[in-house]
Order: sequence, then C-alpha cells, then structure tokens
Amino acid sequence: MEQILSMNGGSGEQSYANNSIGQSTCLSRSMPLIKQAVLDFCCTKLPETVTIADLGCSSGPNTFYAVSEITGIIYERCCQLGRSAPEFRVFLNDLPGNDFNTVFQSLSAFQEKLREENGPGFGPLYVAGVPGSFYGRLFPLKTLHFVHSSSSLHWLSQVPPELTDKANPLINKWKIFISKTSQPAVISSYLTQFRKDFSLFLKLRSEEVPPEGRMVLTFRGRTTADPTSDESCLLWDYLGQAFQDLVAEGLVEEERLDTYNTPYYEPHPEEIQAEIEKEGSFTLDRLEVVALPWDSVNGGIKDDRAMTAKRMAKAIRAVNQSMFRSHFGPDILDPLFHRFIEIMAADTKEVEHVSLVISLIKKA
Amino acid sequence: MEQILSMNGGSGEQSYANNSIGQSTCLSRSMPLIKQAVLDFCCTKLPETVTIADLGCSSGPNTFYAVSEITGIIYERCCQLGRSAPEFRVFLNDLPGNDFNTVFQSLSAFQEKLREENGPGFGPLYVAGVPGSFYGRLFPLKTLHFVHSSSSLHWLSQVPPELTDKANPLINKWKIFISKTSQPAVISSYLTQFRKDFSLFLKLRSEEVPPEGRMVLTFRGRTTADPTSDESCLLWDYLGQAFQDLVAEGLVEEERLDTYNTPYYEPHPEEIQAEIEKEGSFTLDRLEVVALPWDSVNGGIKDDRAMTAKRMAKAIRAVNQSMFRSHFGPDILDPLFHRFIEIMAADTKEVEHVSLVISLIKKA
Repeated sequence: MEQILSMNGGSGEQSYANNSIGQSTCLSRSMPLIKQAVLDFCCTKLPETVTIADLGCSSGPNTFYAVSEITGIIYERCCQLGRSAPEFRVFLNDLPGNDFNTVFQSLSAFQEKLREENGPGFGPLYVAGVPGSFYGRLFPLKTLHFVHSSSSLHWLSQVPPELTDKANPLINKWKIFISKTSQPAVISSYLTQFRKDFSLFLKLRSEEVPPEGRMVLTFRGRTTADPTSDESCLLWDYLGQAFQDLVAEGLVEEERLDTYNTPYYEPHPEEIQAEIEKEGSFTLDRLEVVALPWDSVNGGIKDDRAMTAKRMAKAIRAVNQSMFRSHFGPDILDPLFHRFIEIMAADTKEVEHVSLVISLIKKA
Repeated sequence: MEQILSMNGGSGEQSYANNSIGQSTCLSRSMPLIKQAVLDFCCTKLPETVTIADLGCSSGPNTFYAVSEITGIIYERCCQLGRSAPEFRVFLNDLPGNDFNTVFQSLSAFQEKLREENGPGFGPLYVAGVPGSFYGRLFPLKTLHFVHSSSSLHWLSQVPPELTDKANPLINKWKIFISKTSQPAVISSYLTQFRKDFSLFLKLRSEEVPPEGRMVLTFRGRTTADPTSDESCLLWDYLGQAFQDLVAEGLVEEERLDTYNTPYYEPHPEEIQAEIEKEGSFTLDRLEVVALPWDSVNGGIKDDRAMTAKRMAKAIRAVNQSMFRSHFGPDILDPLFHRFIEIMAADTKEVEHVSLVISLIKKA
C-alpha cells in the first residue's frame, strides 16, 4: 500500500490537482469546525513556534488550504489579543509516491500569498515535506501542536488480510469493495481492519502530540447503520460492474478481479466514537457530518447525468489509478472508466457524499 | 537562481545521481573531519532528539551518505559510552527544483539499510524534505544541532549584479566564469558576491544553530592566491571555448554568451577565514584542503583523455544543464557538450580538483 497508493501527480488533465473538487468542497465545509478548534487552541499558552502537520496533503490546490487557514486564524487571533504572534513550522505529509516536487515548486507562490493576506507581521513559516504512512510514527515525541487531515483516513493501511490470505482467501466475488452481495465475513473483515488502523493512528499521534494539542480529521463516512447501503457502495458498485464487463470482454481475468479489494472503509460515527474511547488518548470535542450533494463534482453547476458521470470518472480515476494500474496493468484504465461512465449515466440513483469531521483534544 | 538551478533529476543516463562520482569522492574524503566533529559533538550533552540538516542534499547516492555516517557515529558513540541513544530528526534541504520525489521514494530502502547497519536499537530517525535556498532562513530558531553541506556552497545566490546591470553591464567577454582574460572588475565582483553570500549563510545558520552546535561544510575552493589560475578556471575555459565555437557556427548569439555568467566562486582558505572571523558567530575548528586527481571522474580507473573528457562532460552537464537550458534554450546542450569533449580531449593540461572542508562550532 505505502509504495503503491498515490493521487495522480502533476497538473495535467488527469491529475488529482485538477480533479479533486469534491475533496476541496468537503474541506471548505469542515472549516467552521477547524476554525473553532484553532480558536480554542489559541486560548492555551502558545509555544514560540507553533508546529502544524497536514497528514495526506496530496498535491494540488487543497494541499495548502487548511494550513493557510489555520495559520491565518492563529495570527489574526494573536493580533486581536495583543499577543506576539508565533512563528510556524508546517509539515506536509503524504505517502512517498505523492508528487512532492509539484508541491515544493508552488511553495514560493504560497508564501507570497500568505504575506499578502496576513501582512508583513505574519510568520516566518517554515515548510517541510514528510514522506511516509501515517500508520507509522512520522514525528519525534510531543512535537505537533495542531494536526489536520482531510480525505485521507478512509484509506486503510492494507486490504483486510482475510481477503488476501494466500492459502484460504475470503473471496469478495465480482466486487472491489463492500457491496450488498458481499458475504458478512467480508464486511466484518473491513470493519476489523478499520478499527485496528484507526486505533493505531490515534495511538501514534498521541505520542507526537503534547497535552492540549489538537487534531481535526475529515474523512469519508456513512450515516446509515448498514455498511452495504447505496450511500457507501453505489459508486463502488458501478466500478465493480465496469470491471465485470471487462472480464466478460476478456480484457481482465476473473481471478484478477476476485483478488482485488480496495483498502478503504467508510465508518459510522458510532464506530469512530467507540474507537476514540477505547484508545483513550484523545477527547472527542466535536463530531459533525458533512453531506455533499450527488452532483457536487460539477462544482455547483447543474449538468446532465452524462457530464456528471464523466467528471465523477475523472475524480475516481485521479484517486484510484495508482492501485488499479499496479494490480490490473495500465491498459485497462481507459476502457474501465469509459464503461464506468456508461453505467453511471444509464442509471438514475442519487446518493449524498458523506464525510465525518472530528475535532480531538489530547488528554493531559 | 532559486527557481532555475537544480541538478539533473531522476536516475537516467544524464542524471546527477549517475554523474556525481567527483562529489561523492570529495564527500568521502571529507569524512574524517566530519567524524571528528561528530565525536566532539558527542562530548556535549545530547538532546533527546538530535536534529541534523543536510543543505544542498541533491538527489542520488550522495543524498543520504553524510546523514547515514553522522547518525551511525552518534549511535555507536552513545553505545560505547553506555548512554541512551537519541532519536534523530533529519532535514534534507535543496532548492525547490530538486528531484525530491526520487529522494523520497528511496527513503524506505535507506531506513532499512540504517537498521541493518546499526542494529535494532538505532533510531527512530524521522526524515523531512525542506525546499528552499540556504541564502534564506529555512528552520526555526535554534533547532539544528548538526549542519552538513557538501558541494553546494560554491554556488552563489545570484550572478554578481555588476555583470547583469541592465543600464551598464560589466561584460565578461566570451567567458562564462572568471578567466585570465576577465577584467579585474569582473573578478572583484565575483569575490564581493561570494563574501556577501557566505557571510549571509553564516548569519542565517547562526540563528538556527544553538550554542555548541556544529557545521561541517565542503565546497569547491582553490589553493592558489590567483583566482584566474588554471586550477580554478581550466574546465570553465574549455566550456567558454565550446560556447565561442557555437557562436562562430551561428548556433548561439554573441550577445547571449556575453550576458551569461555562472553564479559560482571558488574561494581561497584565507577568504573563508576572513569571512568567518568578520561575521563572528562561529569558531573555525578545522580547515582542510581536499585535492582530487584530474581524472577522479573515472572513479579510480585509468582511462584515456577522450574517455575522461566524456565523463567530465556528463558530470558538468548534470550540474549546469538547468541554467544553460534556461538561458540558451535546450537545443544547444548536445552540440555544446560534444564540442566541450573535443576541446578537452585535444588539450594536455591537467589540474587537481580542489575542495575545502571546514568544521565550525557555534559560539555561546
């Protein structure tokens, strides 16, 4: 996983940078909760250098968005209170395959924008890139004051091992994710893996974040108790159907499809709350549900289903391409997404895109 | 400069990674002095997390070399002394155009190698990439315990402004660097720029390094008092001659050549000592001269002058290509280095490649 998964790099037509409007909208919808957490954080004694980490920063317009807001709010609040403003150290983290080169080349424009928006008293702000999985330790002890992560924690550290057990694999027949037809054991293997990963994430961060430190995490989730509802599975089912058609056409071997499962999970708020309590290092300060309309990929413009399907295909491709290519080879990508568009355009179902935003405080 | 200069990225035939044997040899020759500085540093009270920066890390086999040695020596020394070993935070710095993606993708192999070489008690070691010029602040106050830089500080922050003054430029006729035929004013503009840059570098680092912190810096220099001697200028003169031939063939406009000057300087030890004393933040603990043989680019193998010229052309191209391309366009690169090889192969002169290694201690 760590070596394979990456959002599409660069700034071309198929790049994540150009096909992440859903993630961007979700991030801006989580801003009120981020702002509240930052203002609460400003009520504590600030260190001389405030250290902020963005975990799963990716490459594109979303990369600097949260950091820009968080540092701006802290600076403004310090000015209001007549306190001297801190300097900032920002760590942008993602997996080693992320396109950090593109991020780094846009850094001077970002710094320029920050100075323009906040005035000459702002900063200095020191930026570093940190390659690695957030399911491992990334930072020295107690060095992160504010952690942000958006559209990343729904990724698991691995496909549930029951599904890849070489001797006796649990087959998720014809599917690439949880679906109505998945056996209960498949669903429970996903939940178990999510619990393990999310709990590990909390434990690792609890070592890196000092008492009173904050985390605001936004990730895909669900509001329905049933993890096989359309809310969670509809788009994955379209994709699964497109793969099945490629099997029927002989472009993909059936066994290849049966052995592919997406390392992804959309938790329910109760599952999140339970893990936070069980792990015990953080207090859950707030939890909110962000539900984006079905056609949010169109950026607020009304468009027909075929156009929506085209944009959705690009968005899904920008995120999943690295894994599909690694398992199925590069040649299936164009036919797969062509078929996905046809399938989605021919259907009439609509579901909301649900994310959860949680604000956490490190216990003393 | 900051947006243009970068060593050739990737791992292909023309990459810096594959054409930096000279820099690598120089680095390994500076190792005894690095080792002594690290051992001296170990006599001070070590922090829980030792923070090390490599400035101008580039991308290739040299990127992790110094860091690997420095951390290994500290760990070994702590084990010998029965002290608990620190964890390490490593910052790899280079200009934003550096190929950090390639560096980050080789990180897990590097971590694996460190664990193998040092055993399971080593680390953890946290790595981050820091894009930006070391002629600006890169790190928060007093956060760097050990700074290393190799084959980087001979690069100036800019071409001396007298040479690029739009109204009244000082023309370094037919040349791309200091040469015997350069006017004295050209030579003095280079020295002035170097003094300014080196002094600024010391001042900036003095803010980032706490008292007792260490720096070991290796960069190209000269042993002759005269900066126009062949020791400093021979290869630049071959290159200048190749450019002149391209002008004669109509491939390069004369005015383009006259307005190009390399932002580079090879200081004499006395110039270095004078700046360190004048700036005043650091004590010069040691200064050594490393002189590599003329054909060190052959990696210790004896080869004829034509082969040496070919390898030298690749090494120079891997370093200078980004700047040549930006000023002259991409089409001149192949003919330029083809001509360079012919000129160098036809000559018989040989000079040593001189570097200076200095070890500095931050004053209290």
